[in-house]
Amino acid sequence: MVYKFGVVGYFMSDDCVFCKIVNGDIPAEVFLANDDFIVILDANPKVEGHLLVIPKRHYDNFLDFPLEVYEKFLVTVKDAVEKLGVKDFNLILNNGKDAGQVVGHLHLHILPRKEGDGFEIGA
Amino acid sequence: MVYKFGVVGYFMSDDCVFCKIVNGDIPAEVFLANDDFIVILDANPKVEGHLLVIPKRHYDNFLDFPLEVYEKFLVTVKDAVEKLGVKDFNLILNNGKDAGQVVGHLHLHILPRKEGDGFEIGA
Repeated sequence: MVYKFGVVGYFMSDDCVFCKIVNGDIPAEVFLANDDFIVILDANPKVEGHLLVIPKRHYDNFLDFPLEVYEKFLVTVKDAVEKLGVKDFNLILNNGKDAGQVVGHLHLHILPRKEGDGFEIGA
Repeated sequence: MVYKFGVVGYFMSDDCVFCKIVNGDIPAEVFLANDDFIVILDANPKVEGHLLVIPKRHYDNFLDFPLEVYEKFLVTVKDAVEKLGVKDFNLILNNGKDAGQVVGHLHLHILPRKEGDGFEIGA
């Protein structure tokens, strides 16, 4: 992968769809944003209100996600669930292809849940 | 719920199975531990190596999980995946009954994954 500074000053990967969303080159519905993260509506929601929490800087996955952004990451997750106003939700981070990670830029799913919504979680 | 200091000095809930595990009243296979968290093998593993990351202090769920333990929480998760030596895994936090939270003490699942292991994740 090639890393460069995008127009907003973050390291981005040329072939990464989430970097392009962060950079404004691909449109997305932004639910909230701060200096380090954006939270967008999943383009293919599994449930109503399905969100993705995405660091603006490119990290392939959790294994190269550095300590200094851990706190801000979970603050962003909590801000998002509070803005959703839900008490029942799944937080899911799929790491690596065999775990179902589709986009190679770290992201966490927030899935608001309701009884009988038809979504099944295996764990 | 009634909170009290357990013998190890953490706030615990009388009727909470994870508090009892933290307190040593119910046995569990401890994978790793630090001052604030224990990581145990899930007693009903969905995949080989299925772990649970559990704060020693009782929090019902992510909504009452305080900022000051966010960084240590994710450090513990990373320590556990590094000790497992896996690159493909799911991190899952189920919050609330409608989201499949079975034990009312915050915990995060780590599911090491392999191609064709039969586990399905919906998101």
